[in-house]
Amino acid sequence: MSDTMQRPLDVLGSSVDKRIIVKTKNGEDIIGILKAFDSHINIWLDEAKIEGEKEVKLGKVLIRGDNIVYISPGK
Amino acid sequence: MSDTMQRPLDVLGSSVDKRIIVKTKNGEDIIGILKAFDSHINIWLDEAKIEGEKEVKLGKVLIRGDNIVYISPGK
Amino acid sequence: MSDTMQRPLDVLGSSVDKRIIVKTKNGEDIIGILKAFDSHINIWLDEAKIEGEKEVKLGKVLIRGDNIVYISPGK
Amino acid sequence: MSDTMQRPLDVLGSSVDKRIIVKTKNGEDIIGILKAFDSHINIWLDEAKIEGEKEVKLGKVLIRGDNIVYISPGK
Amino acid sequence: MSDTMQRPLDVLGSSVDKRIIVKTKNGEDIIGILKAFDSHINIWLDEAKIEGEKEVKLGKVLIRGDNIVYISPGK
Amino acid sequence: MSDTMQRPLDVLGSSVDKRIIVKTKNGEDIIGILKAFDSHINIWLDEAKIEGEKEVKLGKVLIRGDNIVYISPGK
Amino acid sequence: MSDTMQRPLDVLGSSVDKRIIVKTKNGEDIIGILKAFDSHINIWLDEAKIEGEKEVKLGKVLIRGDNIVYISPGK
Repeated sequence: MSDTMQRPLDVLGSSVDKRIIVKTKNGEDIIGILKAFDSHINIWLDEAKIEGEKEVKLGKVLIRGDNIVYISPGK
Repeated sequence: MSDTMQRPLDVLGSSVDKRIIVKTKNGEDIIGILKAFDSHINIWLDEAKIEGEKEVKLGKVLIRGDNIVYISPGK
Repeated sequence: MSDTMQRPLDVLGSSVDKRIIVKTKNGEDIIGILKAFDSHINIWLDEAKIEGEKEVKLGKVLIRGDNIVYISPGK
Repeated sequence: MSDTMQRPLDVLGSSVDKRIIVKTKNGEDIIGILKAFDSHINIWLDEAKIEGEKEVKLGKVLIRGDNIVYISPGK
Repeated sequence: MSDTMQRPLDVLGSSVDKRIIVKTKNGEDIIGILKAFDSHINIWLDEAKIEGEKEVKLGKVLIRGDNIVYISPGK
Repeated sequence: MSDTMQRPLDVLGSSVDKRIIVKTKNGEDIIGILKAFDSHINIWLDEAKIEGEKEVKLGKVLIRGDNIVYISPGK
Repeated sequence: MSDTMQRPLDVLGSSVDKRIIVKTKNGEDIIGILKAFDSHINIWLDEAKIEGEKEVKLGKVLIRGDNIVYISPGK
């Protein structure tokens, strides 16, 4: 690979302070504003909520990376 | 990343001695006062209790990080 | 092994900017254009969608490598 | 973090020779007197028993850390 | 062990460019021609297909090692 | 911790050549005479048998550590 | 531990070229002649077959260590 090749986590780097969707291994969609992430894909969201049968408001939340299936900057 | 970028575990650093919610992989909400954490996201809570169908009082508790889905400073 | 032996991730290196299928451990097929990957097989797709009973459009997505069963450049 | 910050495993350090409850991933409560632990949260209990539908006496027992959800010095 | 002792992955080294069967943890048999592997037992197959209730043609495929139960050069 | 503090695996060190019970993650009790162990808690038993609905005689057996919930020198 | 203490994998070292039983996490018994193993307990068997409701002949097979519950040189 060349040094200028993009890396997967660049998707997150360009999404800080923007709304993202985090799909967890138990099938939940957690939506919030990305504040920070690390190499384990631990994620800090603000204004987070769980979408689903009943919406759950979480506010500020730290999601442990090993529970995450995928992350999308939204549709 | 710049050196001043926030990291996900900063959410925990600013929550020490405050009440947090820990969602575990078996679906329980453990609520308590955060006393300490480490890089594995092992968590020490005081005055902890499990919310759910029947509330269980735990008092002081060490939660092993690999059981944690997310942590929130509360709603 | 000789230094010129191919490595499994070469399949991904030759698929950048091409459409691939990612099979996840929960049985979903996520299809999109491969933009980047790393040694953990974390995958960044563009124009991604989940195929299945109901198609879900994801757009840009980061898939965490430990959820992936296999990746194919398509049929 | 300052050097004097508490660490989560300090909960265990202050519980040696005291009775603790260990919740395992298969939902069991193992109760006993903490004799030793390590950084993997492997736990050695004396006078241990499994509480539940039918109590099982274990006596001395080594619990492998990766099976542990949480540990509490008791209610 | 002597330096000349065989190692388990030698089974794969002698199967490059030959047809192998990969049994995955979800019970599928993926059959194809082995092109490359690494120490994590990540596998690159060509002309791959999933055998089972309904055969699925995959063509070129990268199988992530942690999904693999066993690999056989065939019956 | 002081240098003289006991470690959890000391339970095993004092049980070599004695009969122990190994509880596995699939719920089985494997009973046998402990011959050797390592830091991963891989266990070699002699005269081993699986207790349960139907007893299974194993003789000499190596149990991989990551399948073990707890180990007890017996009731 | 003294330098002369036996280690659990010595069970395998003394079983090379002999018939062993490998119990996998999905409950299968794979029987074959041990040709090689490594520190991850990856196993290469010759003349292997899966015992169970219907016997499956595998011939030469590489079993990934993380699928193995226990290994026995036989009853």
